[in-house]
Amino acid sequence: MQLFIGNKNYSSWSLRAWLMLAKSGVNFSEVKLTLDTPEFYKRLESVTPTLKVPTLIDNEIAVWDSLAICEYINDAYMSGAGWPSEQVMRAKARALACEMHSGFNGIRNEMPMNIRATRYVELSEQAKKDITRVEQIWCEQMQKFAGHGDWLFGSWSIVDAMFAPVALRFKTYGITLNEDASRYMETVLNCSDLQCWIADALKETDIVAIDEAGKERES
Amino acid sequence: MQLFIGNKNYSSWSLRAWLMLAKSGVNFSEVKLTLDTPEFYKRLESVTPTLKVPTLIDNEIAVWDSLAICEYINDAYMSGAGWPSEQVMRAKARALACEMHSGFNGIRNEMPMNIRATRYVELSEQAKKDITRVEQIWCEQMQKFAGHGDWLFGSWSIVDAMFAPVALRFKTYGITLNEDASRYMETVLNCSDLQCWIADALKETDIVAIDEAGKERES
Ligand SMILES: N[C@@H](CCC(=O)N[C@@H](CS)C(=O)NCC(=O)O)C(=O)O
Ligand SMILES: N[C@@H](CCC(=O)N[C@@H](CS)C(=O)NCC(=O)O)C(=O)O
Repeated sequence: MQLFIGNKNYSSWSLRAWLMLAKSGVNFSEVKLTLDTPEFYKRLESVTPTLKVPTLIDNEIAVWDSLAICEYINDAYMSGAGWPSEQVMRAKARALACEMHSGFNGIRNEMPMNIRATRYVELSEQAKKDITRVEQIWCEQMQKFAGHGDWLFGSWSIVDAMFAPVALRFKTYGITLNEDASRYMETVLNCSDLQCWIADALKETDIVAIDEAGKERES
Repeated sequence: MQLFIGNKNYSSWSLRAWLMLAKSGVNFSEVKLTLDTPEFYKRLESVTPTLKVPTLIDNEIAVWDSLAICEYINDAYMSGAGWPSEQVMRAKARALACEMHSGFNGIRNEMPMNIRATRYVELSEQAKKDITRVEQIWCEQMQKFAGHGDWLFGSWSIVDAMFAPVALRFKTYGITLNEDASRYMETVLNCSDLQCWIADALKETDIVAIDEAGKERES
């Protein structure tokens, strides 16, 4: 099984799929392509019609899109354990994952993932609203599952993969959260799989200009 | 079970979830709210944290987001029959559904769903690329499943709900497609559930200014 990803420093959607694979325990190799280069598009031509990462190749199956990859792995290799086992919780987890998948454009546009950087950005009202909503989600779930584990639904689930890049962004741009939400952010940032990804990201030297937002900030 | 939706003339995400419910055969009532009015947001305050439609309320469960609603109905009421039964096909269907859920911004921004209208719009390169990609998907699936049914994966599946509003947009803005893709567009437009939605849309009189794009066109 091969997962095509972008630069680990920048590619937030790649990270989501990669975390899912790492957590699932399936064997996979990664093919890393540098975003925004002719080689990126050339290599993907025979791999995915969208020319985007992440894309998973599993024998004759090609799955593009982070959320579809999560559902596929859950379906084919985890007997459904990627989502909370209880139906009401599973429905909510999917709603949150889909909310992330299609929304939060303020955060996405103004705070690109840039793991090695420490920055300050002037935020629009939309981005501030997005941050407040993320804080609300994290806080509510931490309170609801207090004593049952440190992830959004107690045990790790796909929704945690979907929100992981947001924690990295908050770190880069110095966003501070209330206590419960901060606790969740710590859980994400201390996760050993994410630590591996971060270590690789810090070794990268390519610069993707469009993802270099904001001014330097003292960390 | 209650499905909160927006104006049938304009609300493309609502239509996706509504079609899923109609196709599933579950009993539901719809609560229609007029987009872009104070009442819309006021009514949704106690219903969904996103203040968006569609949102499904099923006893104590609230599911916001069209795709999450489809997955929930599939999971809770259809024993998985909402997706193709074969794993490789299911993976592809989810990739296509996710591609729709997170992409096609050119089509979404420049060709808002507006069922009663017949319009012409000057399209950006991005929108043209989106149209070409939709045509490619529809054409490829029609060829692959020729003789096995008229939907994207032979029988109706969630991915058909996700693409339905695009067929309505192509009709409104006079987009012509190749033969196989046109055939699929006909299947969608002739579907009796969609016909019911369209009939209701045509009775509506509210105007949502932001969704009124383009110049009048002879049909
Ligand atoms: N909805 C897709 C988004 C994928 C996406 O936008 N990937 C970016 C990198 S993070 C990409 O491949 N960009 C290249 C391009 O758009 O040209 C997903 O969830 O996987
Ligand atoms: N990703 C969501 C998008 C929902 C959405 O944007 N709905 C629109 C109507 S089609 C809405 O509620 N707009 C009201 C607003 O954003 O204020 C989904 O798939 O359901």
